[in-house]
Amino acid sequence: MSLIVALDSPDREFGSLVEDLCDIVDGFKLGLPLLMGRGVDYAARLRSRCNRGLWIADLKLADIGHVMKLTTSLVVEHVDAVIAHGFVGIQGALGELKEFLNSLGKKLVVVASMSHPGAREVYDKALPLILNVIGELEPWGIVAPATRPQVITSIRERLGDSVTILSPGVGAQGAEPGAAICAGADYEIVGRLITSSNDPRAAALAVKDAQKQRLQACKRGA
Amino acid sequence: MSLIVALDSPDREFGSLVEDLCDIVDGFKLGLPLLMGRGVDYAARLRSRCNRGLWIADLKLADIGHVMKLTTSLVVEHVDAVIAHGFVGIQGALGELKEFLNSLGKKLVVVASMSHPGAREVYDKALPLILNVIGELEPWGIVAPATRPQVITSIRERLGDSVTILSPGVGAQGAEPGAAICAGADYEIVGRLITSSNDPRAAALAVKDAQKQRLQACKRGA
Repeated sequence: MSLIVALDSPDREFGSLVEDLCDIVDGFKLGLPLLMGRGVDYAARLRSRCNRGLWIADLKLADIGHVMKLTTSLVVEHVDAVIAHGFVGIQGALGELKEFLNSLGKKLVVVASMSHPGAREVYDKALPLILNVIGELEPWGIVAPATRPQVITSIRERLGDSVTILSPGVGAQGAEPGAAICAGADYEIVGRLITSSNDPRAAALAVKDAQKQRLQACKRGA
Repeated sequence: MSLIVALDSPDREFGSLVEDLCDIVDGFKLGLPLLMGRGVDYAARLRSRCNRGLWIADLKLADIGHVMKLTTSLVVEHVDAVIAHGFVGIQGALGELKEFLNSLGKKLVVVASMSHPGAREVYDKALPLILNVIGELEPWGIVAPATRPQVITSIRERLGDSVTILSPGVGAQGAEPGAAICAGADYEIVGRLITSSNDPRAAALAVKDAQKQRLQACKRGA
């Protein structure tokens, strides 16, 4: 099973949580509020507590290339991947960012779709255009919400097996563990369901267990 | 004339520049690289050098409401306005952010259109949907690029006089001072043309002069 834990709150000390979860999860996603509130050096301090797995800076970048590279350069040495929005396009934007990340041996992850109801107002209607961008850009990974597994399935069909699909929205936002993986995602991203638990390690183990059961059920169904 | 200076680089000390420009510009826009690299307290330190005009945090927010509010809360006490993307829609996103900013007496500025060539790939094609979002949301201000004055004019026609239009793209990105104001913008945002000058005050005065001349010419033409 593939589980990444989202750390967003700028008011919490996550060091011992990271250490507790290190051997049972596949990575950590650091949110913009955390990185801006605690400072970018905090990413290095957290990583020193667990130097394995995939570390992702969830900057949700959506600017011209020059500014996205400036922002990325502040944190990139402490992470393996950076998240940007597909809607800003390639020319003068994601193309420059991908080249910059490639030169550093780092991964680009592009948001294809979002999980909140407002995603229906613009994002969803632009999905075919965003998939064109992703198809041409060929980033290492994309983000698509666990709350809407049919979007994951259609993206997997469209983009094939070479792209890594990361799927937030499990837990607090309503999706059940395993549903996104059943639909074709590679990683499920879980935040508050684990980080707000009194026993984050037990909560993470329960998520992994639920993922396993769900995947067995959907494999039987297939 | 209406001139806002963009401060983006995280590697520069902008204190004396802010003081030098304070009495001749209408405000400052603080970029995400600056805020993340220098820490949010830096916004307070800069503002203490010029406690007038409009101070804007250009966070280019594009996330669910919960995360946008967390990020905004880190810097909002030091600024008058915050920039977010129209692309993320209202429900569970910009609606929550606007309510949060209203409760603090702060302004929401929504990106309607961008200046780089890649904006043609997705953003431009989604413009009618984004204008629906803006029309319903009624933010204090919107962002539309000086590099494409016809977009500014059509947005002004569509949204009327009540919305404030802020226009980046003057200088390094190619638009001439005054062109966006002629097209209907309220403020032009200028970065490197002023901040990279050996004499930023002289450069800002030259921009204001060029704005004035351009506006006189376009009024004569109208």
